[in-house]
Amino acid sequence: MTDIQSPPAASNPAVPGVLALAHALIACESITPATGSVFDCLESQLAPLGFEVSRFLAGEAPDGPVENLFAIRRGPAGSKHFAFAGHLDVVPPGEGWTSAPFAPELRGDLLYGRGAVDMKGSIAAMVAAVAQVPADAGTVSFVITGDEEGPARYGTLALMDFMRERGENPDLILVGEPTSVHRLGDMMKIGRRGSVNIFLDVEGVQGHVAYPHLADNPITKLVAMLAELDAIVLDEGTDWFQASNLEVTDLTVGNPAHNVIPARASARISIRFNDLHTGAELGARVCAIAEKHGGIARPVISGEAFLTEPGVFSTLLADAIRAETGIEPELSTGGGTSDARFLKDMAPVIEFGLCNATMHKRDEAVAVADLEGLARIYVTVVEAALKA
Amino acid sequence: MTDIQSPPAASNPAVPGVLALAHALIACESITPATGSVFDCLESQLAPLGFEVSRFLAGEAPDGPVENLFAIRRGPAGSKHFAFAGHLDVVPPGEGWTSAPFAPELRGDLLYGRGAVDMKGSIAAMVAAVAQVPADAGTVSFVITGDEEGPARYGTLALMDFMRERGENPDLILVGEPTSVHRLGDMMKIGRRGSVNIFLDVEGVQGHVAYPHLADNPITKLVAMLAELDAIVLDEGTDWFQASNLEVTDLTVGNPAHNVIPARASARISIRFNDLHTGAELGARVCAIAEKHGGIARPVISGEAFLTEPGVFSTLLADAIRAETGIEPELSTGGGTSDARFLKDMAPVIEFGLCNATMHKRDEAVAVADLEGLARIYVTVVEAALKA
Repeated sequence: MTDIQSPPAASNPAVPGVLALAHALIACESITPATGSVFDCLESQLAPLGFEVSRFLAGEAPDGPVENLFAIRRGPAGSKHFAFAGHLDVVPPGEGWTSAPFAPELRGDLLYGRGAVDMKGSIAAMVAAVAQVPADAGTVSFVITGDEEGPARYGTLALMDFMRERGENPDLILVGEPTSVHRLGDMMKIGRRGSVNIFLDVEGVQGHVAYPHLADNPITKLVAMLAELDAIVLDEGTDWFQASNLEVTDLTVGNPAHNVIPARASARISIRFNDLHTGAELGARVCAIAEKHGGIARPVISGEAFLTEPGVFSTLLADAIRAETGIEPELSTGGGTSDARFLKDMAPVIEFGLCNATMHKRDEAVAVADLEGLARIYVTVVEAALKA
Repeated sequence: MTDIQSPPAASNPAVPGVLALAHALIACESITPATGSVFDCLESQLAPLGFEVSRFLAGEAPDGPVENLFAIRRGPAGSKHFAFAGHLDVVPPGEGWTSAPFAPELRGDLLYGRGAVDMKGSIAAMVAAVAQVPADAGTVSFVITGDEEGPARYGTLALMDFMRERGENPDLILVGEPTSVHRLGDMMKIGRRGSVNIFLDVEGVQGHVAYPHLADNPITKLVAMLAELDAIVLDEGTDWFQASNLEVTDLTVGNPAHNVIPARASARISIRFNDLHTGAELGARVCAIAEKHGGIARPVISGEAFLTEPGVFSTLLADAIRAETGIEPELSTGGGTSDARFLKDMAPVIEFGLCNATMHKRDEAVAVADLEGLARIYVTVVEAALKA
């Protein structure tokens, strides 16, 4: 890790509005792993608000180095610590955009550009919100990585190490992922399922199909193994989670010869699991089934399931959402993974942000009204959290 | 088809010994599809023996044209017609030969060269044998293709068309494939299993593993289909055949994304079946199972099973083998396929030839004693068959 300390915070000028800040962040091309200018841009907005900004590079090739930013504005001694978390990297824009993906463009009520909803727009709302919160209300921090869309090995995990080493322990963490579905405020994520990929291999003995007694077909064993795995009912779901699910995602033999029994057969499975399971337990269970059928299994855990039980945090967030939008947000644990899978080890974490309809797609766009609404919700959340 | 009629047969000089003829045939490079010189060589040996030799090309690209030879020496009106069948093409020699594969070399008691046992050596034995059989003993013919090791679409099948058009109907056919295993005479083939390859495809709906309810995993269906197919016991074998057997020989998905449920999954199976089944019946059975699991099956029949019931033909062949070698030959239906799968539609057919230990391998070789022994067995067989 290399510390890139920013200069001391300057005086406290007015921050630009959320639209201007979102515009500025999107204009900095920052495909994973993001470095440099997009962090300069965020730092230049946070420092004037009284934040002490630390930036550092973590990791080495192939999954690093990754740039990370931790910014903190300390409240009075003993005050609560509320953290915003997120990422400045974006997925590649792909082809077919109406306007250049890194030249943000306002057309009608929408601001277009890669990262508009995932999640530079949310970070802009965080900054705009914090500008409205008095510095003496409590401690606020930003935990921002340049690698959430990629391997994520040296991003949020490195930020958590950085914080722990310095004794920075937030009481609550809000991740700005785009969790809203149809309208701003209709969904927050209070947990995520865990994910484990498992690679299955069966070795057999190659031979001619006319002499099967001289061969040992690995596909027969693999099929029996997969049939047993497909038949497993992991659970029926919980109050907060849908049922855990196993999918076979690939099969590989690669035998061009019609009259040959192949020597090897492989498969890959993906399990998305709720908090009734751990990746290690599921991996061991699949390994046992694989071995029973003469194969081997190699589990790779992407993340464990977690749940921030509904309570004070979800209630104050729901209150803020309802006050702004009139909508009662759904408390969800569905969908993919996010860096909340790491942050949950540090403090209760909830994810809430913009509408995700255009994320990762061409012509990604955010409604200007949503940017402003999200900033107001964040103001209410920060103030309530620091008082709670 | 193009007729390439040979000149009228000349007078009846002595034929060279079996070793010299095998040497001459091996020296003509004739990787599938064989044409030209190797046929010239055989024709030059048959014509002096009183054979009327016809050569023709059949088929077009990609599986043609193929050169074929039909030679006949007619006995007295009403006499029996005995046919030898075989092929002059050979499989590619590959690397690592001790001597050049198409420069036959006698080292010790063995004659080395590609085709020594499969099956130029047998054809040499046929020619040498026929030279010992009086022309008035009956009708003898040679049914020789240049494409048995390849697609075989325009080889023996075209020869059978050629013969039918001319009313040439053998009473018995002996195919000179190398059926002996450890010692010359230990095995003849009185039948062959049939073969059908079946291509299975399942279409699903691609999606993210985190949202399985929005996808339809084709692998789940394919695995269930294959598990049902693997569980089938086709039969327990018969007096003359081993049990029919189904093998899954390939699986294909090709999905590099760990978090994606793929759109399509495929498999290929190979069934080797005895005469309790037909390719069409097995294809229909697999199609029904595939459809039940939401997939489709496309059967491609390579050949039907056949059996030349043990009787007069196998007995006179066994007698000839026993007289020469003292060995009681096993009557087998095992192993792969041969052109006997076509010829069985024309007359009772049995396969008998040299030891197959080196066929298709580098340093293919035949024992000179076996060449001579086989020629003597063939003499006895032809004479007995024409009298039978």
